[in-house]
Amino acid sequence: MGALERTLKDIFPQDTDYRVKAKARLDQLALPHWALGDLMDLAIDLAGMTRSLTPPVGRKAIVTMAGDHGVTVEGVSKFPREVTPQMVVNFVNGGAGINALARQAGASVFVVDMGVDADLRNLADAGKIINKKVGMGTANIAAGPAMSPAMARRAVESGIDVAEMLADDYDIFGTGDMGIGNTTPSTAIAAVCTGRSAEELTGRGTGLDDGQLQQKVKIIERILAVNQPDPKDGLDILAKVGGFEIGGIAGLIIGAAARRKPVLIDGFISTAGALIAYKIEPFVRDYLIFAHRSVERGHRYMQEMLGCKQPLLDLNFRLGEGTGAAVAMNLVEGAVAILTEVATFAEAAVAAADK
Amino acid sequence: MGALERTLKDIFPQDTDYRVKAKARLDQLALPHWALGDLMDLAIDLAGMTRSLTPPVGRKAIVTMAGDHGVTVEGVSKFPREVTPQMVVNFVNGGAGINALARQAGASVFVVDMGVDADLRNLADAGKIINKKVGMGTANIAAGPAMSPAMARRAVESGIDVAEMLADDYDIFGTGDMGIGNTTPSTAIAAVCTGRSAEELTGRGTGLDDGQLQQKVKIIERILAVNQPDPKDGLDILAKVGGFEIGGIAGLIIGAAARRKPVLIDGFISTAGALIAYKIEPFVRDYLIFAHRSVERGHRYMQEMLGCKQPLLDLNFRLGEGTGAAVAMNLVEGAVAILTEVATFAEAAVAAADK
Repeated sequence: MGALERTLKDIFPQDTDYRVKAKARLDQLALPHWALGDLMDLAIDLAGMTRSLTPPVGRKAIVTMAGDHGVTVEGVSKFPREVTPQMVVNFVNGGAGINALARQAGASVFVVDMGVDADLRNLADAGKIINKKVGMGTANIAAGPAMSPAMARRAVESGIDVAEMLADDYDIFGTGDMGIGNTTPSTAIAAVCTGRSAEELTGRGTGLDDGQLQQKVKIIERILAVNQPDPKDGLDILAKVGGFEIGGIAGLIIGAAARRKPVLIDGFISTAGALIAYKIEPFVRDYLIFAHRSVERGHRYMQEMLGCKQPLLDLNFRLGEGTGAAVAMNLVEGAVAILTEVATFAEAAVAAADK
Repeated sequence: MGALERTLKDIFPQDTDYRVKAKARLDQLALPHWALGDLMDLAIDLAGMTRSLTPPVGRKAIVTMAGDHGVTVEGVSKFPREVTPQMVVNFVNGGAGINALARQAGASVFVVDMGVDADLRNLADAGKIINKKVGMGTANIAAGPAMSPAMARRAVESGIDVAEMLADDYDIFGTGDMGIGNTTPSTAIAAVCTGRSAEELTGRGTGLDDGQLQQKVKIIERILAVNQPDPKDGLDILAKVGGFEIGGIAGLIIGAAARRKPVLIDGFISTAGALIAYKIEPFVRDYLIFAHRSVERGHRYMQEMLGCKQPLLDLNFRLGEGTGAAVAMNLVEGAVAILTEVATFAEAAVAAADK
């Protein structure tokens, strides 16, 4: 039995007993019934995930997984490929969007080289990034599979390793991504997992115009026709149309779920990673919190597939990096504060509503 | 010239020059253009409000204004009137929703007795609440005006006093309210200011059933017929169909705008206060940030009237107290972090997009 299978054995659904206990307390809070709406629903989930009526969420880690994509040769992104390693350096220097928003939320940022097409050993040796490089970028998925089955497994197991490494020191994870071209594999994953057409799912990524968007739709149709992934097999989808950082995100989610830690899912690429994790082990869904709705067109359908009707935020973000997850960490803390710090009618000696 | 008029003289629109400078920097950040969407829009507003490219928002105050309402004799609320002073005590003891969420956001909570129908002098003498009591609750607005014109002015000027008192020590304000029955005057204010019918605007408040909701619609129609407020005169609307805490919120907004401080507007009652402030001085609108969309039905129309298409959050809150404003303070800090901490393409040496 491999590392992946061993980890999957530790994933169980949320604990019903803690959900019931949390709801019983929230029902009694000195406020009109359920007047803090979605954060009260979230508080129940957090109790069920963590098996606690004081769910720990104070130690926060954003894990930003980086990788390159062979499909960039098809002209699917407005940004040149060298931006991936340049942004890794920007993360390390603290100057990116995720650094600013993670600082605001009191979260640490961990950058993982899952498969950047550049030599980043200096950064890894200096302890500034985590080296889990599976390869120097994926192959062009418009011409064949992204990676071998063995590499797909290694990407997911590397994500599990990262979760394991951080799990003793952090209570909650946020997913993040960096990889020029990665909305293309993510859209292909969305198409395989939701059964919807490339037309319905393809968005503008970092800013394509109408003509470029139509071109991207055609390329995604070609990717699906060339690779024909098995919609029931998460590792097959990842190997054929995925990416190294997407596999890393899937692994992080699996590793977090096995440790009963909540995972805030960021945007479009992170949700593609969540779909891969879900195809591998459906119970991971019980540990997911959906941070926001991306501008990227297919995001809604991917979230619905994972049982999310309404994410926490809708701020017209389309950056990735973990930025939406970072902002949403404040809301997770708010949900815990409601469960643990608000007095009941009886405790506060406040008269209840008429029946 | 009274205190109100003196304060109004200090209210100017946002500074265009700072808006332009902020936008110029945000346009150059090392991310796909405007990929942090609504928080980038907000960053421009903050620069324009505060006349700064490093808008100060770290010192945060939630001001929760409390008052009672004579219209409760009509059975418009599920909760008994004595809950207003009981909740004031709960605020002081730190056990309410606003205390929990303000703590999460690092905000201080100030509770103001604008017109609670109970003797709260002990709390005021102990420095635990701010005493600005205008009366022991308003009169029943289904039978006549809520208060005299002099009391309406005094309520607004008291709110200005509170803003003045806090302005040296706080960078940003959040509005909050507590007052059993106060969705009824707020709905009446919404009807006068938006021109929409009571039917369209009336919501379930703390949890009315269908029959009680229909009854509330009829009472609001009666309130409007009996009082006939002048839709162009904010003080007249406040005096005839308002409430002491609603006047206090309007004054807080006016006082904050005069000091060029951003004000996060909480839910339904706070937005009624914002409408009163706007009727008195339309330029206050430039200092408002809309925290969230309440479950309460008319909220959307009130926000639209004030130029808000989409508030920051939509979490199915319907509590008031300032809870939505507290949660949103994190997002305001995030907006400032984007403006002040994210590197440009040039600073980060990241390649820009193809044109």
